[in-house]
Amino acid sequence: MNVEVQIVDGPVPEPRQWAVAGAGALVSFAGVVRPTEEGQAIEGLMYEAYRPMAERQIESIARMLITEHGLLAMRIAHSVGWVRVGECSFRLDVAAAHRQEAITAMGEFINRLKQDVPIWKQAR
Amino acid sequence: MNVEVQIVDGPVPEPRQWAVAGAGALVSFAGVVRPTEEGQAIEGLMYEAYRPMAERQIESIARMLITEHGLLAMRIAHSVGWVRVGECSFRLDVAAAHRQEAITAMGEFINRLKQDVPIWKQAR
Repeated sequence: MNVEVQIVDGPVPEPRQWAVAGAGALVSFAGVVRPTEEGQAIEGLMYEAYRPMAERQIESIARMLITEHGLLAMRIAHSVGWVRVGECSFRLDVAAAHRQEAITAMGEFINRLKQDVPIWKQAR
Repeated sequence: MNVEVQIVDGPVPEPRQWAVAGAGALVSFAGVVRPTEEGQAIEGLMYEAYRPMAERQIESIARMLITEHGLLAMRIAHSVGWVRVGECSFRLDVAAAHRQEAITAMGEFINRLKQDVPIWKQAR
């Protein structure tokens, strides 16, 4: 199985090491809660998800990008619940033979996630 | 100091955790030695560098990209010497407030590295 999706309660932990046979490029993105939201200081973000649909959509975006760009594997973890400033709420790993497709797919994945996946956040 | 450059003998180890104040996006690239080079099976790659110039050039590319894209920090590690198939020979971490500049700078850094930094490799 070359797609792994995790919805995590609270912050996303540091990932375990990842080895993908044949990969020349492992690209990772970690989204961290910033100290301000629309110019206001915040303590953190509360994430809510329509969970079964969120998981299904994340997996479907990943499979589409793997096919389109000939990637080797993707790993995605997203928080629900409370995530404090400085903590990680989203993590994406992409493995590919070469760098260009890995980097392109990373940007595309995040755009699609924001558009199509039912996860909302509220600053506190 | 928001640029950290390391030339490492042998494979690049797993990085220590990285926290950068104000960062919303931490993007990482790991370059791994692939099992073939120009269609031939290989055991690994031997990297040679003109080391003082390589370090200086890497730092100068990083500083230029930090200024150009308003990044927060960069960390770079590159191998010299013997790196086996499946091991990491290059690692780049970029911290920025937002994802777009981090992802763009990652791609640009690697292109500049390949063009401008005196590091050579030989398959064995």
